[in-house]
Amino acid sequence: MAYSVEYIAAELQAELFGDGDLLIDSVAEPAAAGPRDLALALSPAYAAELAKGSAVAAVLWSGADWQALGLRAAIIAPRGRLAMARLTGLMDAGPDWPHEIHPSAVIHPDARIEADVSVGPFCVIGAGARIGKGSRIAAHVTIAAGATIGAGCEIHPGVRIGARVRIGDRVILQPNVVIGADGFSFVTATPSYAETARTHLGKGPVTVSDDPTWHRIHSLGGVAIGDDVEIGANSTVDAGTIRATRIGRGTKLDNLVQVGHNVVVGQDCLLCAQVGVAGSTVIGDRVVLGGKTGVADNLTIGSDVVTGGATIVLSNVPSGRVMMGYPATRMETHIDSYKALRRLPRLLRDRMPGKNTVSNDTPRD
Amino acid sequence: MAYSVEYIAAELQAELFGDGDLLIDSVAEPAAAGPRDLALALSPAYAAELAKGSAVAAVLWSGADWQALGLRAAIIAPRGRLAMARLTGLMDAGPDWPHEIHPSAVIHPDARIEADVSVGPFCVIGAGARIGKGSRIAAHVTIAAGATIGAGCEIHPGVRIGARVRIGDRVILQPNVVIGADGFSFVTATPSYAETARTHLGKGPVTVSDDPTWHRIHSLGGVAIGDDVEIGANSTVDAGTIRATRIGRGTKLDNLVQVGHNVVVGQDCLLCAQVGVAGSTVIGDRVVLGGKTGVADNLTIGSDVVTGGATIVLSNVPSGRVMMGYPATRMETHIDSYKALRRLPRLLRDRMPGKNTVSNDTPRD
Amino acid sequence: MAYSVEYIAAELQAELFGDGDLLIDSVAEPAAAGPRDLALALSPAYAAELAKGSAVAAVLWSGADWQALGLRAAIIAPRGRLAMARLTGLMDAGPDWPHEIHPSAVIHPDARIEADVSVGPFCVIGAGARIGKGSRIAAHVTIAAGATIGAGCEIHPGVRIGARVRIGDRVILQPNVVIGADGFSFVTATPSYAETARTHLGKGPVTVSDDPTWHRIHSLGGVAIGDDVEIGANSTVDAGTIRATRIGRGTKLDNLVQVGHNVVVGQDCLLCAQVGVAGSTVIGDRVVLGGKTGVADNLTIGSDVVTGGATIVLSNVPSGRVMMGYPATRMETHIDSYKALRRLPRLLRDRMPGKNTVSNDTPRD
Repeated sequence: MAYSVEYIAAELQAELFGDGDLLIDSVAEPAAAGPRDLALALSPAYAAELAKGSAVAAVLWSGADWQALGLRAAIIAPRGRLAMARLTGLMDAGPDWPHEIHPSAVIHPDARIEADVSVGPFCVIGAGARIGKGSRIAAHVTIAAGATIGAGCEIHPGVRIGARVRIGDRVILQPNVVIGADGFSFVTATPSYAETARTHLGKGPVTVSDDPTWHRIHSLGGVAIGDDVEIGANSTVDAGTIRATRIGRGTKLDNLVQVGHNVVVGQDCLLCAQVGVAGSTVIGDRVVLGGKTGVADNLTIGSDVVTGGATIVLSNVPSGRVMMGYPATRMETHIDSYKALRRLPRLLRDRMPGKNTVSNDTPRD
Repeated sequence: MAYSVEYIAAELQAELFGDGDLLIDSVAEPAAAGPRDLALALSPAYAAELAKGSAVAAVLWSGADWQALGLRAAIIAPRGRLAMARLTGLMDAGPDWPHEIHPSAVIHPDARIEADVSVGPFCVIGAGARIGKGSRIAAHVTIAAGATIGAGCEIHPGVRIGARVRIGDRVILQPNVVIGADGFSFVTATPSYAETARTHLGKGPVTVSDDPTWHRIHSLGGVAIGDDVEIGANSTVDAGTIRATRIGRGTKLDNLVQVGHNVVVGQDCLLCAQVGVAGSTVIGDRVVLGGKTGVADNLTIGSDVVTGGATIVLSNVPSGRVMMGYPATRMETHIDSYKALRRLPRLLRDRMPGKNTVSNDTPRD
Repeated sequence: MAYSVEYIAAELQAELFGDGDLLIDSVAEPAAAGPRDLALALSPAYAAELAKGSAVAAVLWSGADWQALGLRAAIIAPRGRLAMARLTGLMDAGPDWPHEIHPSAVIHPDARIEADVSVGPFCVIGAGARIGKGSRIAAHVTIAAGATIGAGCEIHPGVRIGARVRIGDRVILQPNVVIGADGFSFVTATPSYAETARTHLGKGPVTVSDDPTWHRIHSLGGVAIGDDVEIGANSTVDAGTIRATRIGRGTKLDNLVQVGHNVVVGQDCLLCAQVGVAGSTVIGDRVVLGGKTGVADNLTIGSDVVTGGATIVLSNVPSGRVMMGYPATRMETHIDSYKALRRLPRLLRDRMPGKNTVSNDTPRD
């Protein structure tokens, strides 16, 4: 579908220059753009790239001289990534799933399917489940008995939704997401070695249980997911024990993220790829956890906390902190420690020469 | 289904106080509990919470004064989490999967399905596969030709079971688990750069192969999973090369765990979320690997080893050790190093003032 | 199927000793090998193991005295793992998927299915999709409208292939892989706390946005996967924003690997289990990323780079570097720092005794 540059500028709430009647089919990088593509050149670094392609219209950085760039039309967007959000949203026709209830789907007669819902081939929807108005369920999705999904959701192929899961409106679940699997919660009849060792922090004698059998604590609490949440491919959110695990409104999870049982994640958070949050931890609002961040169990993380990639959080974090490292500290502390560590070998050579035989051995305990 | 408090106390092998005839429908946190809920208040910290809810019966900590808490009945459980295991097990009705072989399932005529097995919609079971007595296979499960599953198992939706996989009795596989995918094992015709560099530990010249093509070592060994194992959502256990990858009896894996080809994990271990164990490593019994722990390939980890979250194990670990850090060391060593590192910036400022220009640069190599 | 030892030696391009007419059904470890198994004893360490089994033929290390080991035939392979690749390839009959288009598959009439393609039960293939000659699609696979798959591919059960995905020839996708899910790309209308904090590196005041809503940048660019790529179970490769995310020819990804939107991975790379590469990073050829390696967004990693397990790369890496640590540095630098750190507690005790009260507290910020 084609749009005029004028229409696009209006949708982006951005300033239009030049010929607004030019028609655009698609969006492209400057060097790859053809005459019917809108080139995205959101910083001066892309000026040279524009010349390599054949775009006649582009979205440009503030202050760009569009005519000098040889364009016939330009859109100037003060906040480029926001313009990208609006522009890609406009150009995205959405998933190709047919608007129908596919006849192969196995839907329990007691499930409640509201108006304008589509259900793909080979879906299985249990008794008492409810799918809200306009939600689209792709192929191969499993929805357990009693689970509820709000209005306007997009549930991608292979998603597994367990018992006692409640999902809000406009939620997007990417392929193979698992919501509401059983939590990882086990206990031995008498204190286990690991339990004792953790108390002793590795010091002193520990008790070895004579019965190492792990007894399973079952998950009865389900999961509650707020409106406008998105969860990335192959991520997992476990059911709570006796109350729901919670993901707050507007929060986004990337791929391969793990959220343990009883965890509460606040609103408008971002959890980047491969983040793991262990059981019963509570996270505030607007928290951004960098990729591969790990948060230990039973902690409290305030609002507006930011962690760098691969941060490992082992203690509570007050609101507003920027954290890094393993174990996590304030970013400044981490950088100071890191720089000092890099200078340490020379210090040891200078100050402790007699003890300074550095061998080629690999590090060993 | 309702239970009397007396019945529950007997099931928990715990002491009953007050009116054992009270009927209980469900379990709840103290503040959220209603009059037909059994409140779980396993430590004095929950005393105030009880007053916020309307529970008249609770499971309490040892020594609690149940009457002073305004209850009509109480169960005192000396080991609270063990009581939770029994209580949640009692209250868990289990998955809602119908007890039937769904007509849509594609089951090879040579597969052997024993008594009381249920198979959900859209399952595919290959030739010569065997499903033991009473096992329940949910929807969308794939079981390759020749794979065997013991008695009393619970296989959740979307699980993929490959060739030469043998699964014991009472095993639980959470949704989208993959057992028996091909191992990650490749070799170049002549030593690759990475192979040479690893030998040289980054020192000295390395050979660059003139043919960088990776030749695939196929996986012929399958996987053997013992009785009473549970594996969490989206976890993967790869097939061995010429013998089986093994997970011992009673071991539990959390979500998004990776177990590489030829790995042997002993009995009664816990591998928490996002743990990764690389190829051919052998792990003893009763080992607890904290979340995000990584274990390099071809190592030996003794029994009763415990690792803190995000520990990266790069060398063998004797039995009984509590490990932490990257690379992993004894927990005491790690904590000493960590504390020393936190004091180091001040040491450098005090002792080496002339060399102490700390800039605001981010760390770079 | 049985092979003569002579035939196997020829396939392995290796030297044959003794009775080439012996018939072999299978491959086994020395101690477990029976008289019809070919024992794999690729180093002298296995000599004693051979005696425990009953193999009469084996693949041996260079220089082995096969007669002294009591064998009737032997194959000497100078590069053992390469011999394993050829041998296991010979012995692998491949997946058991029937050569047919299963009647339950839902294939859009406008999809183009070339000759000798097999499609398993319950697959869903969208309009305009194309499957190349001889490719085998297992059960439960979803292929979106317009996606293309080359010739000779093996697509395992539960794989999800999204819109605008182009896959080359002879590609193997292990179970539950997700290719072309939407990228993780969000922006707030005005700079968010995290955005400001990242700029300030945790120092000084930061702006708190009054509207924390995350606006979604849609993924229009799809994924392009080269020939001879293999991707492990439950791994995810996200779609690019306005151009394709790319995986180069011959590159292999292990299980639970995440490749973010717009990433470019070169040719003949290995990305081991649980690796994560964040958005828009570019990786050269023949790069080997050890298990759990993380690479931050918008970086450039040269060719022939090798990272140790759990390396966290936060800045660009020139070609040929061997990297380790968090943050990643050259391996030598990392080992020097690590050794110095292990000596630091003693240094502090010796040099700063007055300040050396080491408590039993766990590390806290």
